[in-house]
Amino acid sequence: MSEQAPSWSERWRARLQRLRAPALRVALFALGAAAAFAALLLYQALFPGPRQLTTRDVSNSIAQAFASATPQPAFSERVYQVIQPSLVLVQAQVPGADGKVEHGVGSGVVINDQGDILTSLHVVTEANDIQLTFADGTKSSAEVTVKQPEHDIAVLRANTPPAKLVPATLGNPNAERVGDEAFVVGNPFGLYSSMSAGVISGFDRSFQPVSSNYRLEDLIQIDAAVNPGNSGGPLLNRYGEVIGIVTGLVNPTDQNFFVGVGFAVPINMAATAVGAPQY
Amino acid sequence: MSEQAPSWSERWRARLQRLRAPALRVALFALGAAAAFAALLLYQALFPGPRQLTTRDVSNSIAQAFASATPQPAFSERVYQVIQPSLVLVQAQVPGADGKVEHGVGSGVVINDQGDILTSLHVVTEANDIQLTFADGTKSSAEVTVKQPEHDIAVLRANTPPAKLVPATLGNPNAERVGDEAFVVGNPFGLYSSMSAGVISGFDRSFQPVSSNYRLEDLIQIDAAVNPGNSGGPLLNRYGEVIGIVTGLVNPTDQNFFVGVGFAVPINMAATAVGAPQY
Amino acid sequence: MSEQAPSWSERWRARLQRLRAPALRVALFALGAAAAFAALLLYQALFPGPRQLTTRDVSNSIAQAFASATPQPAFSERVYQVIQPSLVLVQAQVPGADGKVEHGVGSGVVINDQGDILTSLHVVTEANDIQLTFADGTKSSAEVTVKQPEHDIAVLRANTPPAKLVPATLGNPNAERVGDEAFVVGNPFGLYSSMSAGVISGFDRSFQPVSSNYRLEDLIQIDAAVNPGNSGGPLLNRYGEVIGIVTGLVNPTDQNFFVGVGFAVPINMAATAVGAPQY
Repeated sequence: MSEQAPSWSERWRARLQRLRAPALRVALFALGAAAAFAALLLYQALFPGPRQLTTRDVSNSIAQAFASATPQPAFSERVYQVIQPSLVLVQAQVPGADGKVEHGVGSGVVINDQGDILTSLHVVTEANDIQLTFADGTKSSAEVTVKQPEHDIAVLRANTPPAKLVPATLGNPNAERVGDEAFVVGNPFGLYSSMSAGVISGFDRSFQPVSSNYRLEDLIQIDAAVNPGNSGGPLLNRYGEVIGIVTGLVNPTDQNFFVGVGFAVPINMAATAVGAPQY
Repeated sequence: MSEQAPSWSERWRARLQRLRAPALRVALFALGAAAAFAALLLYQALFPGPRQLTTRDVSNSIAQAFASATPQPAFSERVYQVIQPSLVLVQAQVPGADGKVEHGVGSGVVINDQGDILTSLHVVTEANDIQLTFADGTKSSAEVTVKQPEHDIAVLRANTPPAKLVPATLGNPNAERVGDEAFVVGNPFGLYSSMSAGVISGFDRSFQPVSSNYRLEDLIQIDAAVNPGNSGGPLLNRYGEVIGIVTGLVNPTDQNFFVGVGFAVPINMAATAVGAPQY
Repeated sequence: MSEQAPSWSERWRARLQRLRAPALRVALFALGAAAAFAALLLYQALFPGPRQLTTRDVSNSIAQAFASATPQPAFSERVYQVIQPSLVLVQAQVPGADGKVEHGVGSGVVINDQGDILTSLHVVTEANDIQLTFADGTKSSAEVTVKQPEHDIAVLRANTPPAKLVPATLGNPNAERVGDEAFVVGNPFGLYSSMSAGVISGFDRSFQPVSSNYRLEDLIQIDAAVNPGNSGGPLLNRYGEVIGIVTGLVNPTDQNFFVGVGFAVPINMAATAVGAPQY
């Protein structure tokens, strides 16, 4: 029998037959990819992981933090905590007219571990007896060890200092600017360990106290209240560092009370009295 | 016919033939994996999702927030808003020498819903007529209902109180520290509803006003300006809570104006005048 | 030969045979998917990407930022920097009694590019010679170009102004509230360019200076120290904008020093003297 040539349709069937296996394979391949993809989507749906933070989340957190931020206590409160242990009440017995004894009051500040106490010279200059009261209540008589009349500064040493002396931290007046916070702690009118607050009003002021032969130079001017009894006490910056020693005030009536202008000797000048180099 | 042993090359061809199907399958497998991987990369390229935030992003946001943070208004501004509706102007007619009538001015503060008004006793002690002006402008005569001379405190009641009384919030003076903000609102020299600002200078002060038989104890000392007319007005903390009632000032010349030292009776003592337990 | 019907077991074998190829393909498919998945896990293990930030991380960053935030310098410091170049020292030669010459001192502030200087009229009203000292040290005589006695305001023009005039920025007093910061820069007691700080105590005060025929109205009351020499100087808000011109103070003894109450003419009234519309 002669073999019949394959018909047109049979040829096509053969061709398709030949393509069948590859097509199956391609379909298989695509199905595999799709399945892997589906598995991954399932995985992510089941274990989504932490939601990613957005910029908006962060902004909200920040806004909330700002809104709920407890305002810091005033600098003055912290300054007082810092300086109070170093404050000294200075009481001077001054021989008055016709044999009477007058009592002057001033302030002082412990400035080193040796127990040197800075005060204003005019507080103790004519005293024949000086009594100190420390922050812990200890009382002691004291001697003047150094006098610097050109700065109205005296250095005192207690005869029986307290067991624990807390020296103040000294600051750098040259780092201060007009308008910076200025705090005064002292004993105005004998009111023990009083604080007053203001700003630095100016630098490089000169001032001649009533009944002094010296004109004080390079003073710091402040608008924190200073009154009799504040003399010799510390002037402090916002960090509680001593930047000056209160020395006087301006009063146009020549009476001795505050009207808005007080003066302090920069601590870098005052501290030379205890041998510190002037910076 | 002897079957010819398969040649070396044929043996190998057979082996490869046997391997062919598995190799195809492995290739298929690898292609499927690669395709899934490629699909994933494509997906991520098309839908990249939000860029993940970094620590640097957060730091930048915070820095920006700090830089652009609007500074809060001063405590004093908010304190004034809070206390102003509770402030009272106290005017006292005092019989003066030789039949003349003198007018004294002071301050007061509404402290409860019953309309009790705290003021300084010395403002009203000799008055034969007391006129109040409330923050809403209402005027009324008033009677003294309680006197506490040991605290220089008087309680007033308006005869025709305003429709709406706004009592002040009382604070706890024991929670305050030296250096904390101190605000005074009152009528110095008759200047209605004036504010002055300062800090707490000290606690536990005692003070005997001129022309008083009582020595006031446990006073709060402040450096916020107080002057005649401020007496009886509230001393406030940074939150606008009343922590004291202004009572006097130190002036070395015995004249009646501020030089840096004012006094207030702690509110926990003053409020005992209206029956509050002292805390 | 009769064909034997296929046994039960053979029929099953055939069936399994027919299933074999599809099962293999399904297994292949599953393996491909698993492999892709494994590859992905490996990839993520090898290149994990940045750790995702958590809310806790952000909170910590914020807390740290707050803790380490350097407190801003006081407003007063920045205010001084801003206003100082615009400040003017005004010295007035006033013919005194019996032919003597008296020297008055006041303050002024440059308020526009034309070099108009605002000061208090009472500083210069009787002067026959006015000398100005600018912030750069330049000195010049000056003339009064405008007088506004109802506001105690004078406008000065320097005869030889400095090469560079720095006009101050004017603020809006109507935007201020009681309790807002109030800064004064001037020359109290001749102390050049002194700053004092306080708050706005009140608005709408009226005040008649000693030896003036005019009652000043709508004044701003402040508790920042002002003294003789401050008159004519700027009152500033926390941004260093001029909101008033210092004009006087209350002193119950009629002496001229600060006791807690100072006054300034609102700048919107004062600036009408140089033609600005009152706002």
